Parts: sequence; structure tokens; C-alpha cells
Amino acid sequence: MKSFVFVLVLFIGLSTQAQNNGAAAQKFTLVIHGGAGTILKKNMTPEREKAYQAALEQALQAGYTILNSGGTALDAVEAAVKIMEDSPLFNAGKGAVFTNEGRNELDAAIMNGKTLEAGAIASVTTIKNPIMAARAVMEKSEHVMMIGPGAEKFAQQQGLQIVDPSYFHTDDRWRGLQRAREQDSLKTELDHGSKKTTGVAQPGNRDDKYGTVGAVALDKHGNLAAATSTGGMTNKKFGRVGDVPIIGAGTYANNATCAISCTGWGEFFIRLVVAKTVSDLMEYKNWNLKQATDELIMKKVPQLGGDGGLIAVDKNGNVAMPFNTAGMYRGYIKSDGKAVV
Amino acid sequence: MKSFVFVLVLFIGLSTQAQNNGAAAQKFTLVIHGGAGTILKKNMTPEREKAYQAALEQALQAGYTILNSGGTALDAVEAAVKIMEDSPLFNAGKGAVFTNEGRNELDAAIMNGKTLEAGAIASVTTIKNPIMAARAVMEKSEHVMMIGPGAEKFAQQQGLQIVDPSYFHTDDRWRGLQRAREQDSLKTELDHGSKKTTGVAQPGNRDDKYGTVGAVALDKHGNLAAATSTGGMTNKKFGRVGDVPIIGAGTYANNATCAISCTGWGEFFIRLVVAKTVSDLMEYKNWNLKQATDELIMKKVPQLGGDGGLIAVDKNGNVAMPFNTAGMYRGYIKSDGKAVV
Repeated sequence: MKSFVFVLVLFIGLSTQAQNNGAAAQKFTLVIHGGAGTILKKNMTPEREKAYQAALEQALQAGYTILNSGGTALDAVEAAVKIMEDSPLFNAGKGAVFTNEGRNELDAAIMNGKTLEAGAIASVTTIKNPIMAARAVMEKSEHVMMIGPGAEKFAQQQGLQIVDPSYFHTDDRWRGLQRAREQDSLKTELDHGSKKTTGVAQPGNRDDKYGTVGAVALDKHGNLAAATSTGGMTNKKFGRVGDVPIIGAGTYANNATCAISCTGWGEFFIRLVVAKTVSDLMEYKNWNLKQATDELIMKKVPQLGGDGGLIAVDKNGNVAMPFNTAGMYRGYIKSDGKAVV
Repeated sequence: MKSFVFVLVLFIGLSTQAQNNGAAAQKFTLVIHGGAGTILKKNMTPEREKAYQAALEQALQAGYTILNSGGTALDAVEAAVKIMEDSPLFNAGKGAVFTNEGRNELDAAIMNGKTLEAGAIASVTTIKNPIMAARAVMEKSEHVMMIGPGAEKFAQQQGLQIVDPSYFHTDDRWRGLQRAREQDSLKTELDHGSKKTTGVAQPGNRDDKYGTVGAVALDKHGNLAAATSTGGMTNKKFGRVGDVPIIGAGTYANNATCAISCTGWGEFFIRLVVAKTVSDLMEYKNWNLKQATDELIMKKVPQLGGDGGLIAVDKNGNVAMPFNTAGMYRGYIKSDGKAVV
């Protein structure tokens, strides 16, 4: 079972006129990830591959337009993620995977590196664009995190688009749930008598653990932002929440260091507080973005037994997007068409 | 309106026989906090003060018994927090505050510094001891965080005690909700026309923001653990979740550094990822526990506009329990009877 991660990078430095706030402030950068896990090679026809590329390019273009016209990193990451949420191809928004109970429960987070303001929602089922709700939590409430029906009520009051839960139904994901249920039954039998016989999803089909979309950006004004959105884990049970809506784990942004959006086996990212740790390694140990992100993804996460990756951009526009590829991740595609293995 | 924080510290070093694993491994330490916010001086009769002290002493004794007999830090912090959850005096478990909708929604987290395993639950209404459910999530599932009805279902399957939501009703907290609602109405009027007129609880009665119980411990084996439990914020709306169940924000433990449990204005603790940042300052900047905890509580949290405190113990048994006392916290009481202002 082979899978891809599509990572497109748009790195645009506009070194036109040097301004008072320094040349660096004129550069801008947008990095997005479209997740993994459900993009199986066996299902990957040329048409399908083309559809993914088109959706990712559309997301990049949306963010690019904002950044190029002097818009904020926050607007850019929200716009890019929103497009991926609206696409049935990604495990976020419209294309979210199903829980064990056959529902689509969505999580999202956003953070403003300039102010350290953050917003997150978890386990919502009726908000069309979770990333917009996360932003509303950040900007229109005193809170950082809202979950469940309460978060939905808030989103509705904020005028965000509410949809019937059936909006999130896609046949592909429904079939994915049936497969996961079969594997889960098998796994439960295999686990019988072992230490963990709790009926909690085991990492049988590891591809089903992943699938998150995200974006990080540096704008012309030198501000960083990060946004992440997900449908979580296929067949997840018991109101499980992964790293995506946990500020510091799956999402973090600080103008002093970098902006980060993670994708991977969420439990390990929570335990290691991955995104904030990358930021702290830069702030407190003076490591550069590559050192800091490699430390987590190539060392700490796999040492603990997890896997996954992240995208990051630092205050100088440097980009990092390490993945630890423990039999899962196969390659990247950049906007110049160059695949990075 | 004056309020107290009761912090009792039990610092017991048993320097009896030096063993193979070093003298340091024979020391053990337990620190607990009983929160704040509802312990108003005007309500504080001598009888009531005595009741708080008795409950805290009971919690300390429970942890002490475990640690003294060679038990684990994990068992000790769970036992101490469980006793505070069972008491109606603290804003956790039995004494939890009410949400705007008149419910008691409970959050808790626990972390094992030896393995970096962690467990958290949020927004549960029927689990008698949330801290036990958090531990079950950590030890009996593949997940770190479960929320809402799913978490309750899991706890039930694990054989934990399920209670009717009315178990958490206390008249004191109910009156607190009525007061908060009145203030909220007033505040909403005052806010009319301003930027944030969302009906989201504003920090009118700041005392109602707080109230969390927690424990951190170092056991004879040199292992650290942290546990935190809360009923959250009086009159909270929209499924708001604070820092308590966010691993890295309100709770963290790592044998390499320290164990931390926070209490305070949760939103700021999430944005700064307070607990993990303390750990990172020690790990990456070689700061000691006092420097690291002061940096967050005396500098970063107030700089951002928040307040609160934490308790921490490091791998050598050093204790820190800074509070930034911006008009709210008045004193500590230690087990030797000495009040620290």
C-alpha cells in the first residue's frame, strides 16, 4: 500500500525596492500541505493525480494573491486551508473521514505569530469551514478553544455557514470507514488477551491515521501565521482528538521564530508538543529552522514510536518540511514540478 | 473582593540508606494546589478555612503514603487530585463550577515524566473522577485526548464510576453561576457597541476564571508526574476548553526536566504553552526551575495580559510555585503553617 504526500511550495521573494522596514520584510512565503493517508497509489489514476494538483495549486494561488497584494499571513493561510476544506479530496472539511460511529468530526486551529493569538475548535459536525470557525474563536471571543455543540452554536452566531452533517459525506471516505472497521474487528481479535483490549483503534492501517491540511506563511510585513484543519482519524472512537486543535502540538506561530503546521500520528505530536518545541529550539537554543524541525521529525517523534511531518517557515522566509518516512511517505511535488523523494 | 490560594507543600527527603540508584533517587516530593477563585475572604469563616486545610492535608497525606512506601509519582498525583475532586470545596469533580447552561463540564490531564505518556479528557459531565479517566486514556487506549460523550463512554467501558450529572451540583457553585450571569448581563450591556460584543464571557469577575486542582511529584525512583483537574470557568459558554486538558499548556512532565501543573487564566496558558515552555527553558537553555517558572509566570503571562500560577518540581526535588498576583492572589499556606504572601 503506497501513498503520497503532496507538498507544494511556493517561495516567492520580491526583492524589488528596499524599504525602511528592511528588504526581508518584502519577501513572502506560503507553504501548504494536503496531507496523506488516503492518497493511495492504487487509487491514483492520472485524472485523480491531476485533480489533487489542481486543488493544491488553487489553494496556493489563493494565498499568493493575498500575500502579493500586501495581505496578511493570517488571511493567506486561512484562504489556502479553506480551499482544501472545500475540496472532497482532502481529509478536512468536505473530504473528512468518518468516525467509528459514521460521523464526520472536524478539528481546526489557527495562530497569529504577531500577537500570539490563537483559535481552535474540535469535534464539530456542522461547520462548513472549520478553519473560519477557529479564526472566529480567536478574533471574536475571549477564548482559544471551543468544542462540540457549543463551538457550533458560536459559529452560527458569528454568521458562519452551517451545513447538515450529510454535507461531509463522500463515498470514498465511507468506504474507507468500512475497510477500517473490518481491520479493526480483525485487530481486536488479534489483540484479545493482550494488555490493550479496549476496543480502541489500534494502528493497524496506519494510513488511516493521517490526512490533515495545513498552511504556514510569512507576509510582506514580516508576520507569520499557521493554520491546520482535519477530519481526524478514520474510525476514531470515544471523541478522540488529535494534535491539530492543540495549540503547540499541531499548530504554532510566533514572529520571533517560525510558523508550523503538522500532520502525522497526532498522539505523538501532542506528547512532544512538537510545534512549540520547534519554536523553542530556535528561541532558546538558537538553532535554525532545519535543525529544529529535523530534531523533532527525524529524531524525537520516531524515537517515541510515532511518525509524521510538518511544514514550517521562519521569520526570514526559510522553509522546512521534513517527514519521517517510516514506510509511509513517498514524495513531494513542488510547484516547479520537481518531485522531492 | 479578596481571595486566597492555598498551596501546601510537603517536601520530604528521606536520606536514609544510599542505594545503588543514587541518594537523589531516595528523595521524594509532592506539591499540590487547591486552586483559587471561589475561596473568597468574605465567605471564609474559620470553620471553612479549617475544612480547606483538612482536605488539602488529606490529599497530601494520600500522596505521601504512596510515595513513602516506594509508590510511583503517577499514583501519588492521581491520589492527591482524586481527593480534591471528591471534595465539594474545590473547582474540580464534586465542587465544579457551572457553565452558562447550568451544567458541570469537567476537564483533566495527567502525564508520566518517565515515558512521556499523557492522557486528557475534556467536557465530560458524568465521570465522578476525571483524573482517573485521564489516566485510563493514557494507559488503556492509544489516544491522548478524548472529549465529551465519547470520553464518557470510554470511561464507562473502563469500569470507572459514572454518576448522574446532578452529583456535581453544589449550592455554592449554583449561586456562583447566578452571580456570574448577573455580571455577564451587565458586562454585555457595557460592551454594547465595542469590538467584542459576542456574548462571550468577558473577564468581569476574574475570580471566576480560576479554580483548578493539581499535583506534581517526584518519587523515590526519580520519576516525575503531573496531574491537573478542573471544572473550568464559571458561566463558560460555547464548549470553551481551557489549558487544563491541553498537554503542554496546563500540564507537563518529563523526567529530564520537571513536572508542572498550572492554574490561572487558561487562554494565556494555551497561547504560551506554559508548561512545556518551562520544561524547554530547562532543557534547551539550562535554566533552573525557579528561573524557568518565573520567566513564564512573572514575565511572559503578565506581558500578554494574563495571570495565574503553577506548581512545579524538578528531577532533583526542587520546588517552585510562582503566582503573578495581579490583584488576585493573596497568599499561600504551607504545611508548616507558614503563610507566604
